[in-house]
Amino acid sequence: MEKPKKHTWRFRLHEIIYEADTPAGKFFDIVLFIAIIVSIIFVMLESIEEIDKKYHDILNTAEWVITVLFSIEYIARIVSVKKPTKYIFSFYGIIDLLSTIPKYLSFFLVGSHSLVALRALRLLRVFRILKLTRYIGESTNLIRALRLSRAKIILFMMFVFILCVILGTIMYLVESGQDSGFTSIPRSVYWAIVTLTTVGYGDIAPATALGQLIASVIMLMGYAIIAVPTGIVSAEMIRTNKRSIETNTQTCQYCMARKHRDNAEYCYNCGELLNED
Amino acid sequence: MEKPKKHTWRFRLHEIIYEADTPAGKFFDIVLFIAIIVSIIFVMLESIEEIDKKYHDILNTAEWVITVLFSIEYIARIVSVKKPTKYIFSFYGIIDLLSTIPKYLSFFLVGSHSLVALRALRLLRVFRILKLTRYIGESTNLIRALRLSRAKIILFMMFVFILCVILGTIMYLVESGQDSGFTSIPRSVYWAIVTLTTVGYGDIAPATALGQLIASVIMLMGYAIIAVPTGIVSAEMIRTNKRSIETNTQTCQYCMARKHRDNAEYCYNCGELLNED
Amino acid sequence: MEKPKKHTWRFRLHEIIYEADTPAGKFFDIVLFIAIIVSIIFVMLESIEEIDKKYHDILNTAEWVITVLFSIEYIARIVSVKKPTKYIFSFYGIIDLLSTIPKYLSFFLVGSHSLVALRALRLLRVFRILKLTRYIGESTNLIRALRLSRAKIILFMMFVFILCVILGTIMYLVESGQDSGFTSIPRSVYWAIVTLTTVGYGDIAPATALGQLIASVIMLMGYAIIAVPTGIVSAEMIRTNKRSIETNTQTCQYCMARKHRDNAEYCYNCGELLNED
Amino acid sequence: MEKPKKHTWRFRLHEIIYEADTPAGKFFDIVLFIAIIVSIIFVMLESIEEIDKKYHDILNTAEWVITVLFSIEYIARIVSVKKPTKYIFSFYGIIDLLSTIPKYLSFFLVGSHSLVALRALRLLRVFRILKLTRYIGESTNLIRALRLSRAKIILFMMFVFILCVILGTIMYLVESGQDSGFTSIPRSVYWAIVTLTTVGYGDIAPATALGQLIASVIMLMGYAIIAVPTGIVSAEMIRTNKRSIETNTQTCQYCMARKHRDNAEYCYNCGELLNED
Repeated sequence: MEKPKKHTWRFRLHEIIYEADTPAGKFFDIVLFIAIIVSIIFVMLESIEEIDKKYHDILNTAEWVITVLFSIEYIARIVSVKKPTKYIFSFYGIIDLLSTIPKYLSFFLVGSHSLVALRALRLLRVFRILKLTRYIGESTNLIRALRLSRAKIILFMMFVFILCVILGTIMYLVESGQDSGFTSIPRSVYWAIVTLTTVGYGDIAPATALGQLIASVIMLMGYAIIAVPTGIVSAEMIRTNKRSIETNTQTCQYCMARKHRDNAEYCYNCGELLNED
Repeated sequence: MEKPKKHTWRFRLHEIIYEADTPAGKFFDIVLFIAIIVSIIFVMLESIEEIDKKYHDILNTAEWVITVLFSIEYIARIVSVKKPTKYIFSFYGIIDLLSTIPKYLSFFLVGSHSLVALRALRLLRVFRILKLTRYIGESTNLIRALRLSRAKIILFMMFVFILCVILGTIMYLVESGQDSGFTSIPRSVYWAIVTLTTVGYGDIAPATALGQLIASVIMLMGYAIIAVPTGIVSAEMIRTNKRSIETNTQTCQYCMARKHRDNAEYCYNCGELLNED
Repeated sequence: MEKPKKHTWRFRLHEIIYEADTPAGKFFDIVLFIAIIVSIIFVMLESIEEIDKKYHDILNTAEWVITVLFSIEYIARIVSVKKPTKYIFSFYGIIDLLSTIPKYLSFFLVGSHSLVALRALRLLRVFRILKLTRYIGESTNLIRALRLSRAKIILFMMFVFILCVILGTIMYLVESGQDSGFTSIPRSVYWAIVTLTTVGYGDIAPATALGQLIASVIMLMGYAIIAVPTGIVSAEMIRTNKRSIETNTQTCQYCMARKHRDNAEYCYNCGELLNED
Repeated sequence: MEKPKKHTWRFRLHEIIYEADTPAGKFFDIVLFIAIIVSIIFVMLESIEEIDKKYHDILNTAEWVITVLFSIEYIARIVSVKKPTKYIFSFYGIIDLLSTIPKYLSFFLVGSHSLVALRALRLLRVFRILKLTRYIGESTNLIRALRLSRAKIILFMMFVFILCVILGTIMYLVESGQDSGFTSIPRSVYWAIVTLTTVGYGDIAPATALGQLIASVIMLMGYAIIAVPTGIVSAEMIRTNKRSIETNTQTCQYCMARKHRDNAEYCYNCGELLNED
C-alpha cells in the first residue's frame, strides 16, 4: 500500500477533513460543527406541529440542502481515505450514513408513519460534536477518571436497582387497595426509582400514613446514597490528578527518594542530579 | 468430622454450587443468575392485572418450573454441605427457603388475599444477585469505605431528621388554616423531608408567602446539606485509596510494625533499617 | 465555692444527670432519650385530627405524665448544679423550660388558638437528642470540618440566592401574561430556587418555549452548581482527616524531615529518635 | 497625569467610595449594602399586584428616594475618579447606570408596558452585593478552584446536553401517540433535562410501560452522572488547598524556582541548597 504523495488532491482532502492543523482543516471543523447544530435545530423544529404546518416548505428545502451537504461530506470522507471500508464500518462512518439517508428514503416511503423514527435518525449527527471535543484538552483526564471508576459505578447502580425492587415491592404491598397509583410491582419499582434518585415527579405518591413513613425513609436513604457515586468519582479524580501532574515515578540513584515533582532535575532530598528517563 | 474425599459426588456438588473455580461452578453461577432474573420478571409481570388475566396459565406454569428448580437447588445445597443446619439458618439459607415456599403454600391458601404478600417473598431472590457480585473485584474496597463512614452517615441522618421535625412543625404552624395540605405535624414533617432531600413531589406545597419563604430557605439548606454525606464518603474513599497507595506493605523485620510511608527507609517504630524490596 | 463532697445526694444526682460514666448515669440518659422520643410522638399524634378526637383522653393523660416527668427532671437539674442560674439561662436550660411549660399554660388559656403554637414548643425537646450524640465519637471531627467550611458555604449560598433573584426576574418578564404561575417577582424567585436546587415541585412550571429553554439552562446550572458545596465540604473533611490522623507536625532534629506518622518514634528518613513533644 | 494630592475633597471622596480602610469607607459600604437590599425588596413588592394597588404611593415615593440616592452615588463615583470614562464603561459602571435610569424614563414612557422590563433593570443592583463579598476572605480560594475546573465543567455540560437530546428523541418516539405531553422533540428534550437533573416537575411524565422503563434508566443515570461535576470541583479544591499546604513559599536564591516540596532541602531545579526559613 503506497503512501499518498504530498500535494495530491486526495492527500489535501484528507488533511482538511481528518486533521485540524492547517487553516483549511480548522475551517472545515468549524463549518461542520455549525452545520450539525443547524441540522439538529431543523429536525427539532420539524417535530413541532404548528411550526411544521406553517413553514413546511422552508424546512423541507433547508433539510434537502443540509442532506446534500452531508452526502458530499460522506463521499469526500470515503474518497480521501486509503481504506474506505474501514471508515464505512467504523462507529462514525455508520452514524454519518444513518443520519444522511432518511431524507432520500422519504421518496420511497411517502406518507409512511415510520418516517418519524427515520427522521429522528438525523439527530445522530449530535455524536459528531462529541468527536470535536478533542479541542478541549481536559477531556482525556476526565474520561480516564470515569473509565477507572466505571466498575464501581456499575456495581453501585446494580445495588441501587435491587434496593428499588425491594422497596417498590414493600410499597406495593402497603399501598395496594389505595387509589394512589401503586397498581403493580413494576409501577411501584418505577416509583421507588423516582423517589430514591430524588427526581420526585409526584404522579404517584403514597396516600397512607405507613406509605408516607416508608417514603420518608427511602428519601433519606436516597439523600445519603447519592454520596457513594460522588465519593467514587471524587477519589478517582484526585488519584488521576495526583499521578499525572504532581509527581513522577523517578527514583534518585543516590538517596532513593521517590515521588519527585514532574519538572524536577535535582533530587529534593540529597541534591544530586536526577536521571532523565 | 472427616473431610469429604475428593471425587465423591457430594464433594463435586459442593464444588459446583459453592465455588466458582471450575467451569461447572462458573456455569452454575451463570444459570442461577439468569434463573433469578427470570423469576423476578415473572413475579413482576404477575402483579400487572391485565397481563395476569391474559397469560395466567403461562405465568403459572413458568412459576411452577422455576419453583421446582429452586427447590432442587435448595435441597442440593443442604445435601452438599457438611453442616446442613449452618446453611439452613444462615441469611441466604432463610432467603432461599422463603423465596421458594410461596408457590407450595398456594395449595393450602387458595384465593386468600395474603397470597399477594406471600408472592412478593419470591422477590427476595434478588438478594442472591448481591452475593454473585463477588466477581466484581472492586466491591471490597467500596464496602470498606462505606463501613468506615457508617457512623458519621447515621449521625448525619439523625441530624437531618431532627431538622425536618423542627422545620415541619414550623410549617405546620405557618400554613395551618390554609388549604395547602399541612393538616398535621407528621404530614408537615413528611413534606419537610420531601423538600429537604430535593425530591419535591408537589402533592403538598406552601400557599402563603411566608410559607414559600421558609420553603425557599429549606431548599437552599437541603442543597447545601447534601454536601455533608458526600464529603464524608469522599474523604473515606480517598483515605482507603491512599492507605493502599501511599503506605507500602513492608513489615519491619525487627518489630513487625507495618504500613510504613512509601519513602521510609527506617522503621518508624523501632528505628531499624527497613529492607528494600 | 466549696466542691461538693463525694457521696452527698447532690453530688450523686449531678453524676447521674450530667455524666455518663456510672451505670446509673447511662441508664438515666437512655430513659431520657426514650422519654423524649415518646413525647415527640405524642405531640405529633395530637396534631392529627382524627386521632386527637378518638384518643383525646389517653393522649391528654400521657402528656400530663410526660410533663410531670420532665418537670421533675428540670427541678433535679437546677438542684444538682452549683450555679443554678448558669443552667437556667443556658441554651438547653431554656429549651427544657419552654418544652415543659405549655401543658401548665393550658389551664389558663383554655380553648385559645395560640395553644397550637404553644404545644409545638414541646417539640423543642428534640434538641436534647442532639446533645446525646456525644456517644457517637465521630461527631467532633464532623462538626469541625463543617465549622471550617462555614464561611465558604455562606458565601456560596449568597451567590446562589443572587443568581435566583436574577433568574426569577428574567422568568417573570418572559412568562408574564401566561397563565403559568409567574405572577410576581418574589413568586418567580421562589420558582427559581425550587428549580435550581433540583426540588421541582411542579406547582409553577414554564409554559412558553422560551421559558422552558431558560428553565433547562437553570436546571443544568443547578446540576453543576451543586458540585460547589460538595467540593468545599469534601476538601475540608479530607484536610481534617489528614491533619489529625495521618501525620503530625514533629520535625526530626537530625535531618529536618517533617510529616511523620502520628505514632512514629523514630524518623522515617534518618532513623534517629524523634523528640516527644 | 498628576496624582491627586492628599486631603483634597476628590481624594477623600475616592477613599470613601472605592476603598474600605477608613471608618468612613466602611460606613459607606454598609450603607450601600443596606440601600441595595432595600431597593431590591421594593422592586419585588411592586411586582405583587395586591401590594402595588394598596401601597402604590408609598412604594413610588420610596423608589424616588432610592433613585435619587443612587444618582448621587453615580455622580460621586464619576467625579472622584481620575478617568471617568474608564468607570462609566466598566461592568459596574454600566450596571449602576442601567439600574438608576428606569425611574427617570417613567416620565417619558407613562403607561407603557415595556416599563415592566425596565423596572426589573433596577434589580441589577444585586450584582453590587457580589462586589462587597471582598470582605469574605475565603472567596479568592473558592473562585480560583472554580475557574480551574471551568473547562471540565463546560465539557461535562455539553455531554449532558447531547445525552438529553438523544434521550429526549427516544422518548418522543416511544411516547408519541400517547397523551402524556411528549408532543415534540424540543419538549421531550426539556423533559429529559428535567429528569436527568433530578428536578422532576411532573408536568410531563411517561405513560407507557416502555417509557417508564426508559425514564427509570435516565433517572439512575442522572443519579450517577451528578457525581462527575462534584468529583471535578472536589479534586480541584483539594488541589488548590494542597498547593498552599504541601508546597511552601521558599524561593531558591540561585535560580528563583518556586513552589518547592515542603520537605525539600535542595532546589529541584538547580540542585543548590535551599535556605531554611
